[in-house]
Amino acid sequence: MTDHDVKNAGLAAEGRARIEWAELSMPVLRQVRERFAKEQPLKGIRLGACLHVTTETAVLMLTLKAGGAQVALCASNPLSTQDDTAAALVSEYEIPVFAIKGEDNATYYRHLEAVLGTRPQVTMDDGADLISQLHGEGNRSRDLVADVIGGTEETTTGVIRLRAMEKEGVLAFPVIAVNDADTKHLFDNRYGTGQSTIDGILRATNVLLAGRTVVVAGYGMCGRGVASRAKGMGAHVIVTEVEPMRALEAVMDGFPVMPMAAAAEAGDIFVTVTGNTSVLRQEHFARMKDGALLANSGHFNVEIDLEALGRVATSRRAGRLINLAAAEGHPAAVMDMSFANQALSAEFMVKRGRTLERKVYVVPREIDLEIARLKLASLGVRIDDLTSQQSSYLASWRHGT
Amino acid sequence: MTDHDVKNAGLAAEGRARIEWAELSMPVLRQVRERFAKEQPLKGIRLGACLHVTTETAVLMLTLKAGGAQVALCASNPLSTQDDTAAALVSEYEIPVFAIKGEDNATYYRHLEAVLGTRPQVTMDDGADLISQLHGEGNRSRDLVADVIGGTEETTTGVIRLRAMEKEGVLAFPVIAVNDADTKHLFDNRYGTGQSTIDGILRATNVLLAGRTVVVAGYGMCGRGVASRAKGMGAHVIVTEVEPMRALEAVMDGFPVMPMAAAAEAGDIFVTVTGNTSVLRQEHFARMKDGALLANSGHFNVEIDLEALGRVATSRRAGRLINLAAAEGHPAAVMDMSFANQALSAEFMVKRGRTLERKVYVVPREIDLEIARLKLASLGVRIDDLTSQQSSYLASWRHGT
Amino acid sequence: MTDHDVKNAGLAAEGRARIEWAELSMPVLRQVRERFAKEQPLKGIRLGACLHVTTETAVLMLTLKAGGAQVALCASNPLSTQDDTAAALVSEYEIPVFAIKGEDNATYYRHLEAVLGTRPQVTMDDGADLISQLHGEGNRSRDLVADVIGGTEETTTGVIRLRAMEKEGVLAFPVIAVNDADTKHLFDNRYGTGQSTIDGILRATNVLLAGRTVVVAGYGMCGRGVASRAKGMGAHVIVTEVEPMRALEAVMDGFPVMPMAAAAEAGDIFVTVTGNTSVLRQEHFARMKDGALLANSGHFNVEIDLEALGRVATSRRAGRLINLAAAEGHPAAVMDMSFANQALSAEFMVKRGRTLERKVYVVPREIDLEIARLKLASLGVRIDDLTSQQSSYLASWRHGT
Amino acid sequence: MTDHDVKNAGLAAEGRARIEWAELSMPVLRQVRERFAKEQPLKGIRLGACLHVTTETAVLMLTLKAGGAQVALCASNPLSTQDDTAAALVSEYEIPVFAIKGEDNATYYRHLEAVLGTRPQVTMDDGADLISQLHGEGNRSRDLVADVIGGTEETTTGVIRLRAMEKEGVLAFPVIAVNDADTKHLFDNRYGTGQSTIDGILRATNVLLAGRTVVVAGYGMCGRGVASRAKGMGAHVIVTEVEPMRALEAVMDGFPVMPMAAAAEAGDIFVTVTGNTSVLRQEHFARMKDGALLANSGHFNVEIDLEALGRVATSRRAGRLINLAAAEGHPAAVMDMSFANQALSAEFMVKRGRTLERKVYVVPREIDLEIARLKLASLGVRIDDLTSQQSSYLASWRHGT
Repeated sequence: MTDHDVKNAGLAAEGRARIEWAELSMPVLRQVRERFAKEQPLKGIRLGACLHVTTETAVLMLTLKAGGAQVALCASNPLSTQDDTAAALVSEYEIPVFAIKGEDNATYYRHLEAVLGTRPQVTMDDGADLISQLHGEGNRSRDLVADVIGGTEETTTGVIRLRAMEKEGVLAFPVIAVNDADTKHLFDNRYGTGQSTIDGILRATNVLLAGRTVVVAGYGMCGRGVASRAKGMGAHVIVTEVEPMRALEAVMDGFPVMPMAAAAEAGDIFVTVTGNTSVLRQEHFARMKDGALLANSGHFNVEIDLEALGRVATSRRAGRLINLAAAEGHPAAVMDMSFANQALSAEFMVKRGRTLERKVYVVPREIDLEIARLKLASLGVRIDDLTSQQSSYLASWRHGT
Repeated sequence: MTDHDVKNAGLAAEGRARIEWAELSMPVLRQVRERFAKEQPLKGIRLGACLHVTTETAVLMLTLKAGGAQVALCASNPLSTQDDTAAALVSEYEIPVFAIKGEDNATYYRHLEAVLGTRPQVTMDDGADLISQLHGEGNRSRDLVADVIGGTEETTTGVIRLRAMEKEGVLAFPVIAVNDADTKHLFDNRYGTGQSTIDGILRATNVLLAGRTVVVAGYGMCGRGVASRAKGMGAHVIVTEVEPMRALEAVMDGFPVMPMAAAAEAGDIFVTVTGNTSVLRQEHFARMKDGALLANSGHFNVEIDLEALGRVATSRRAGRLINLAAAEGHPAAVMDMSFANQALSAEFMVKRGRTLERKVYVVPREIDLEIARLKLASLGVRIDDLTSQQSSYLASWRHGT
Repeated sequence: MTDHDVKNAGLAAEGRARIEWAELSMPVLRQVRERFAKEQPLKGIRLGACLHVTTETAVLMLTLKAGGAQVALCASNPLSTQDDTAAALVSEYEIPVFAIKGEDNATYYRHLEAVLGTRPQVTMDDGADLISQLHGEGNRSRDLVADVIGGTEETTTGVIRLRAMEKEGVLAFPVIAVNDADTKHLFDNRYGTGQSTIDGILRATNVLLAGRTVVVAGYGMCGRGVASRAKGMGAHVIVTEVEPMRALEAVMDGFPVMPMAAAAEAGDIFVTVTGNTSVLRQEHFARMKDGALLANSGHFNVEIDLEALGRVATSRRAGRLINLAAAEGHPAAVMDMSFANQALSAEFMVKRGRTLERKVYVVPREIDLEIARLKLASLGVRIDDLTSQQSSYLASWRHGT
Repeated sequence: MTDHDVKNAGLAAEGRARIEWAELSMPVLRQVRERFAKEQPLKGIRLGACLHVTTETAVLMLTLKAGGAQVALCASNPLSTQDDTAAALVSEYEIPVFAIKGEDNATYYRHLEAVLGTRPQVTMDDGADLISQLHGEGNRSRDLVADVIGGTEETTTGVIRLRAMEKEGVLAFPVIAVNDADTKHLFDNRYGTGQSTIDGILRATNVLLAGRTVVVAGYGMCGRGVASRAKGMGAHVIVTEVEPMRALEAVMDGFPVMPMAAAAEAGDIFVTVTGNTSVLRQEHFARMKDGALLANSGHFNVEIDLEALGRVATSRRAGRLINLAAAEGHPAAVMDMSFANQALSAEFMVKRGRTLERKVYVVPREIDLEIARLKLASLGVRIDDLTSQQSSYLASWRHGT
């Protein structure tokens, strides 16, 4: 049987049913898979993936396999693994998976190593843990790196880490920042995170958002998604930022902007989506109302200073922490586009990776537009074409006032 | 007296009062002017500007002059000139102006030539007419071009023309695309055009927007501004696009998207903001309801096929065309940021232009952020600073899950 | 010639053209007029109207006349009269009009008397001035009152006055509160005032609303219209109220609510729509930012304490007062429904008024629904009908869980 | 031990913890309870309640008991009972409860009878089942009715049934329509149903709402809540109605309105909130896209013709039905106000019920305003008071223009 470490192979049938359900909501990836099955662009390529082990990821794995790749998968977060999905990938589809929901830190790293043990030629990351591990110390990693054509990275946070590696001159192969594709970050970050954060808050607390003050820390794509949806549910939204351009946009979009020290006193619910550390910390907890709700929707569990929160928790019994990253996945419709970017970026890396430098690359525009076209088609939306007169107008500079 | 061609010098006092009123709404430019007055960064530089001759432009001219420049100004649109402002610039502030509201085409070009006759070292355009004229045929232009250090361009449309010139290899000096600064296009295009288009429609028609269907052609920054504000006034908004990514964003933002042929039948009011030609044309007019209102908010008067409209007009007496570009200017608060970009870009060009290539450049990020900071300060908005822990977190890639 | 007092009969042709244009936007009233012309429900009735003398009012006057009434009209506000409309009514349509834009107080009351001099059997008010005058002291008024079958009243403010009169037992005949019809107050107050207030602010100041703080005093139908539209233009909206239910709704609708003393410090623009007096007064002016804009959208010019404002004006040159009531009329599409209510209520009063008590009555529901139906039809909107199964379900209480 | 029929008394501790948590979100009811405990306004009164057996209802029961009442409770919906809450009421608080989640129809009616067996003097209904049962045939019911002072009813649907009974002359005692209190229906129906419907759809399907078309059947308070929140989440919202006034409001609020036959083709998700039967039926199912989602948020399970749906289900495997009424309860913050109305209405009925007619009554305005005041206070919101000048202005009709 396929090499693996999953919780319970007996969950495979249930997992398969859920994977098939997810496929229904992923029309873009379905079309990519059909082409991959014919063209075999990844034939014989070893691909190591470190992603949230969910039904949508399963559909991506099946797409890559249909394209000819030998795939291995571990979890990018110890808490998000769906054990039935993992079981189905192993038993029903013969894909090696190393992921158990709730695994401890040691197991987490052992699973990363298991994937690296397949000597991947293409890496696929969600948070850059696989690549970080691959760039670790010692001879082994140098040896493994030699095989790698290139990688892809899903998240903003991962891209920040990779750019830092590039700047330090230690990045050993090219990586495509899938996150920077418009069809990824505009949709996943803004619409996906916006909705799933609201969803997570409601499931965890059933609080009535109308009339309550929601403080959104960070006004990047994720932050404006959360702010927009919270406002759409009737909340009073306050934004905090450290970057003046984003702060100004938030003001112009109708949101009061203020330092967190002031927002802490006004808020009922706090959501952090900054990609940074300790955005909510001791000095803010001290100013909050009793009963305030804190939620982190950023990638890593560092945006709220949990240690400091622990210290004040004895005197504040109503304080609650919701880690949405763990609780909630994006809708399949959003992941459809993100993962179509992953699949097409992997194909691009196999075709062109050997000609690229050891840098972080954006997703080629044509991939991005192709995904947008496939998505519109799946929604039944038609748009205009440029007339030939219009094309020539845009190309010409000789037209005056 | 200063060289000039304006309608009526007797309007100067009235113009001056209005310029002083505009200054009150332009706190960013005021701060730039104060520094310019001290530092004289444009000392002795001849600067030729072709911009809408309005009170806000007048404040920009005074800023440039305060910085030491010898300024000359003509109109970038024959219909938008405020004759009292032109008079005040000449009589009260001794700035040469060549602009008369409603001037004919011949006069328009004669005025362009008058500015070129001052042998500008820096050009400042709104639609690239000055640069186009300067790149015209014959020896004279070659001679003039030799003096030019570089230029700046205000609009999307102008930048499209300049990029085409760069591509054809005919652009003779570097140009900064002011339009591409975030503090310009995010604010001017989105918030400025959004509000002023609604304002223009209401002034021209007093139609109740609530419940009516507004078709917005184009979902660039201008288009999303118009769509958002029309929706905010209770309209049913439909978007048309030719670019799949923008079309998809419009769908996800809550707007139905369809080809214009279909939208033409549904719409009560049509607004074009595409930067392209003949977006509304014969085939669309034929499908529209009787009494439909057509408005162009794009830069040039080509987005609606007026000739075709004229042909059908005999049978459709209620059809009306509103040229908003002519009727309406942006709020001073928006122009404040656009023109701060112009002033700081002119300063940058004087300092660095000789080291640049013959290309279209973006506004340096630091200029953009500085303007955002000044604007936030003028609004009384304070934001957070990164803690040193946060700065080092963002810089480091060694932090794992 | 028809008895009258208008500014300039020479403006009649221009007025007629504008009245005809307004008619195009009043499809509901047009249908009412067609029926009136056939059925003559007001045949021989003397009807005295005191309304804003605008093109839309003119269409109402023509409708009443078509129904057989002998109409006379004066202005309900000395500043809103359109002199060309007044001229056209007199010269082109032979309707007695007594209204001159800017007329002084003495003239205003003389004009009220001129209409009362026609011995109206039905009164039609916008602010209850005609009825108040009619209920004044002395024998003459007692005499006139005897002829009156009943009246109609357009505004909230007028209805408040009439209800006070009813309560004091001095109201001498029945009055229909047109304002309370859903097709009037839901549409006129909410959508009409909402849009026209924004419109008025933009025309008067061209201020960019996005990012500015707008304080709306009062969260009745008018207030929620203004708040919703200001928010839709990107403003930060604060609401003040004295009534707890409305205050709570505003909070739940997403608006911060606070006392005016606090709002005065935060606001850039203030709009009063309370129907009450001195909502903005000395203690508030003292707390406002320099350059704050004040606008009254309530019916009477009492919501801002102008006397106190005058006293502080010496030290605050940027303070400006915009009286929107004077500057701006509602879109014709809104007045279409309000005035259809007026016409049908006048018809109802002629038919049934003699059986009514000396009270303020609501518009009969069937009139209201009929207007809604006509309006939907004019917009091309179709709706579902109840199936017979559904009708019987609604009528029955015997269906359990 | 207290008479009861619950699933598992062993769940009591868990239920108690959850009831105490709910109490934290019900500050208005807490204040009512404190007064009741002092004043004992329900001393010795037998009160029979038929409500959703949830933690919020438990807090209401404790409030009534604190006021001196002898309370008995059964479920108003067989699927919404929280078995741990039921257990806690019985074991921890000695309140008789007859409710088991998933109970069959026979048990449901047996439980109604158990409550009626306590010979209630005040009834408290959510859907009018208790009152309907009490008005059933035979001598027994006539006997029971004699004891009843009056009742209260929570829902729109129940009030429709009671008004039909009143009209038929069969209603045997006065009933207060709690649903008609502003602090109930404005908040519960609009904000509560709006949020909980979105919440229910997301939990059941995890569909991305942005960009999808949501059809809302019914534009009453519930419908406009659902429409507003769906729009706030980025959906394209279509409204269907049978009542022209509501249809017109929906149009003016920015929503396309059309017959369901047309909406059926356009929608991805359908939500029924009409209070009527068979709003979605065979003729509509036939026009829907494959994969359409259907959700009923109305009170009774009759709005979607399930029988017809079953017939077409063989050919449409992706069709899903979400019964939100069963899946989801309102946030405690909403129920706080609804149940404060219940408690204060019960008090009013005990004090005044014997003087009332056999009719459906609205909640006295003073109760409504008091609850609004308590709620604002609990949110920390302060509002303005009328000045004495303002009070006298509102009372007087003598002020002219």
